[in-house]
Amino acid sequence: MKPENVVLSENDNSVVIIDQTKLPNRTEYLTLRTPDDFYDAIRELRVRGAPAIGICAGMGLYVIAAGFAEHGEEKFLSELHNVSAFLNSSRPTAVNLKHALDRVEGCAHALRGKGVAAMLDAMRRECIAIQDEDVEMCRAISEYGLTLVKDGDGILTHCNAGPLATSCYGTGLGTLLLGKERGYTFHAYTDETRPLFQGARLTAYELDKAGIDVTLICDNMASIVMKQGKINACFVGCDRVAANGDTANKIGTSGVAVLAKHYGIPFYVFCPSSTVDLNCKTGDYIEIEERDPGEIKTKFFTEPVAPESVKCYNPAFDVTDASLITAIITEKGICRAPYEQSLKICMEG
Amino acid sequence: MKPENVVLSENDNSVVIIDQTKLPNRTEYLTLRTPDDFYDAIRELRVRGAPAIGICAGMGLYVIAAGFAEHGEEKFLSELHNVSAFLNSSRPTAVNLKHALDRVEGCAHALRGKGVAAMLDAMRRECIAIQDEDVEMCRAISEYGLTLVKDGDGILTHCNAGPLATSCYGTGLGTLLLGKERGYTFHAYTDETRPLFQGARLTAYELDKAGIDVTLICDNMASIVMKQGKINACFVGCDRVAANGDTANKIGTSGVAVLAKHYGIPFYVFCPSSTVDLNCKTGDYIEIEERDPGEIKTKFFTEPVAPESVKCYNPAFDVTDASLITAIITEKGICRAPYEQSLKICMEG
Repeated sequence: MKPENVVLSENDNSVVIIDQTKLPNRTEYLTLRTPDDFYDAIRELRVRGAPAIGICAGMGLYVIAAGFAEHGEEKFLSELHNVSAFLNSSRPTAVNLKHALDRVEGCAHALRGKGVAAMLDAMRRECIAIQDEDVEMCRAISEYGLTLVKDGDGILTHCNAGPLATSCYGTGLGTLLLGKERGYTFHAYTDETRPLFQGARLTAYELDKAGIDVTLICDNMASIVMKQGKINACFVGCDRVAANGDTANKIGTSGVAVLAKHYGIPFYVFCPSSTVDLNCKTGDYIEIEERDPGEIKTKFFTEPVAPESVKCYNPAFDVTDASLITAIITEKGICRAPYEQSLKICMEG
Repeated sequence: MKPENVVLSENDNSVVIIDQTKLPNRTEYLTLRTPDDFYDAIRELRVRGAPAIGICAGMGLYVIAAGFAEHGEEKFLSELHNVSAFLNSSRPTAVNLKHALDRVEGCAHALRGKGVAAMLDAMRRECIAIQDEDVEMCRAISEYGLTLVKDGDGILTHCNAGPLATSCYGTGLGTLLLGKERGYTFHAYTDETRPLFQGARLTAYELDKAGIDVTLICDNMASIVMKQGKINACFVGCDRVAANGDTANKIGTSGVAVLAKHYGIPFYVFCPSSTVDLNCKTGDYIEIEERDPGEIKTKFFTEPVAPESVKCYNPAFDVTDASLITAIITEKGICRAPYEQSLKICMEG
């Protein structure tokens, strides 16, 4: 499997992404070159999923920097920092974005005195490494995931944590996709994930394309399918894990976790270890992005689904309490409560 | 306040309803005359809400019967029964539909030997009585509701249980509307209620029109607003209450109830006592209507939000366990657990 969602162009002057806002009806590619191109693509969720955003932004930083390679070192590094800060401001919640930008920018700083060409060369290698590591990470996570389920299980998914959101396999969906390759039969129940329908548009699309049995439900149907005994485990990705195990992920995730606990169903969070932010003590310190009310009222619709005068609250993420999470699965292993310890050990390992 | 959503025409040959599928963008009226008119209007949710469906179907049975008044008594009664059974088959979950049809049909049967004209006259009075009782019922429920909250409270609503779903005030929304008249300030958080957006299209519209502070959220945002302390109580209507207190209501209601319990928030069910079905032992015996996948994938949308090949599961209702319900409020009073006793006493009272 090779990543198709985010690709560095051969001449290194652009990044080509699949425009995820057009799926599942059309597969369109976008070529990103300027800081605004990258900022807008991330902001408008044309590229989305915490790992994919990091990969794309890291490549973006390199491609943009290659465009001002004629600067002297200091000016190059200063401009690099500005671009990095600008790209980082496109979305506030996922830690992978900052993580990737810091890695790519850090390569340049580490080569102070060696010249801009050497810096750019190192940055290029770092971008590729981030993506390669993501492929390995997804595969490792998926292997761990397969130890948590059995053939025939019903799996509830929320939002999209598949290949589109990462590189290959995905995090939350990786177990299903790798399991399919190994001959497992899973029955996926996929929350549509309002307001932007990532579950309907992306997860249902990716699972269906892979030949996995998938049934689309509205978010508010998770309770009934759990109650009916159709669900053996819940699989979600995540955007940031605090040191105590509190987890920020797509809005609605915390509700799924509460339901899972009520119905006695395990709730698993899948993420690269780069998503774990040991500097963030608890979920209370995670900034939650609030987005445009139009996503709730008018986007996607032939006519508005609510009166124009009505206020909307549109948080893009919520925080799931560590107490609701059965395990957090990274490429380094499976962490269980108490998370303060298990996450720390995992990150040091 | 006079009911505007379902009105018997002056010459008794039709029923005029507000087409709820066109709200909030257009207020359009529909004139219903034939059995198919009524069946389709109920089936397609042009008239919806358990009490409103009952009122409309009862009036429909009378209007249709007036059209075959030339029959002899036995043929009239036999035809009446056929029409009643047909209308009752339009939606399976709400008990009010059958309840109203049985009342109107029962009037005719009670006058066997008195002639068809007398039967029709009694049926007409019964239809009007059902609607008048609903107005009184809503008002009484709302008075009881006001004893459960305080000025300034945040109230989460799911689906629509307002004037459109009943006659005046509504059941679940009645407390907010009556409270507004009394000078209370409430802060409503309204679940949009997928797949048909009754919360966004109808509840947000009705509350906004009444000048009540309302914030629209997607269904999967209920957890975050509860966690943030914005919600002091959840208010829902319902379609059928079993003898043990298990309650069928719009899909997603059980999930809201689980969340409310988790966050320690009272969860109140508002309904006319006609919704209580003591013959139905538990929620397991309530038939749950399953509807068209197109409601999830294509209806409302400029283009499909999921691949055509993906299966959907689209239950219109779910059952909330009695153990999750703080109180069930009818026009006869406030019932609390154990519901086997309190509902029985309430129904006998």
